[in-house]
Amino acid sequence: MEAYEALITRRSIRQYQDKAVPAEIVDKILGAAMQAPSAVDTQPWHFVVIDEADLLREIPSVHQYAKMAARAPCAILVCAEPALAHGPGYVPQDCSAATENILLAAHALGLGAVWCGVYAVPDREAGFRSLLSIPESVQPFSLVVLGYPDEARPQPERFKPERVHRNGW
Amino acid sequence: MEAYEALITRRSIRQYQDKAVPAEIVDKILGAAMQAPSAVDTQPWHFVVIDEADLLREIPSVHQYAKMAARAPCAILVCAEPALAHGPGYVPQDCSAATENILLAAHALGLGAVWCGVYAVPDREAGFRSLLSIPESVQPFSLVVLGYPDEARPQPERFKPERVHRNGW
Repeated sequence: MEAYEALITRRSIRQYQDKAVPAEIVDKILGAAMQAPSAVDTQPWHFVVIDEADLLREIPSVHQYAKMAARAPCAILVCAEPALAHGPGYVPQDCSAATENILLAAHALGLGAVWCGVYAVPDREAGFRSLLSIPESVQPFSLVVLGYPDEARPQPERFKPERVHRNGW
Repeated sequence: MEAYEALITRRSIRQYQDKAVPAEIVDKILGAAMQAPSAVDTQPWHFVVIDEADLLREIPSVHQYAKMAARAPCAILVCAEPALAHGPGYVPQDCSAATENILLAAHALGLGAVWCGVYAVPDREAGFRSLLSIPESVQPFSLVVLGYPDEARPQPERFKPERVHRNGW
């Protein structure tokens, strides 16, 4: 897939075929995540790959909007280690760039994925911390659920010219 | 350029040729920015395109780490309109996804770009607000400086296997 086209055609995909995601594809996706920019190249992230069916089925109990995880072959919990970051304000920026790269890498490799927000929602952070035994020094940030797509979604027109300003407001 | 390759080979580029970025290329880049995912598809962003040389030369006075802007043909200030967002925690996530798409679209289209952090740095937010007459309802978030690259940077190996965890910590 051509790179610019991938940016334009990526959609949130919540229905997946009953087909495992090979480990080497997951590693390629994580490789793209770790190539994201981070402030002063601190790379303050961790990734928990979840592919055990029992764990995937538990996810909706800790994230009410991640019900699709129960039927998915794989999910990746992006986590931050704030002590590694350039400062607290950079945690969400660095980890969001990594999350966006995961979505785009999945799309580029023929998978579909959806970003489920965790950051700044204390119940979800605590739920994932408990479910996956995440240490106190690490902060659950976002959940990406992914698999081979079992839905096709049209490409929306999101360009809003009124959101573009030239050399000032 | 192939999509996965674009994710892996993107680098921060701070030296640019003395060559304008055509308006249609800037619009394509903004189109990719606006295709970023946002919580509940709220799209809480604005973009200020800066291509006047006098303004570009002022940028280092409001962002000490954006000296490259003074020699660049173009910069895009990504801004948030928090009232549009699904909640305050989503502002940095949504705007970071849009910023990352800008970097990747620039790379895909043969340009080079660098993300200069503004979010959570009050002096920089205030400086850009003043420089570009940004209203109080809108928050400067990140500055992407871009142009045709005048440097080649090697691709680093950033994959860290110790940052990958399987089905729990």
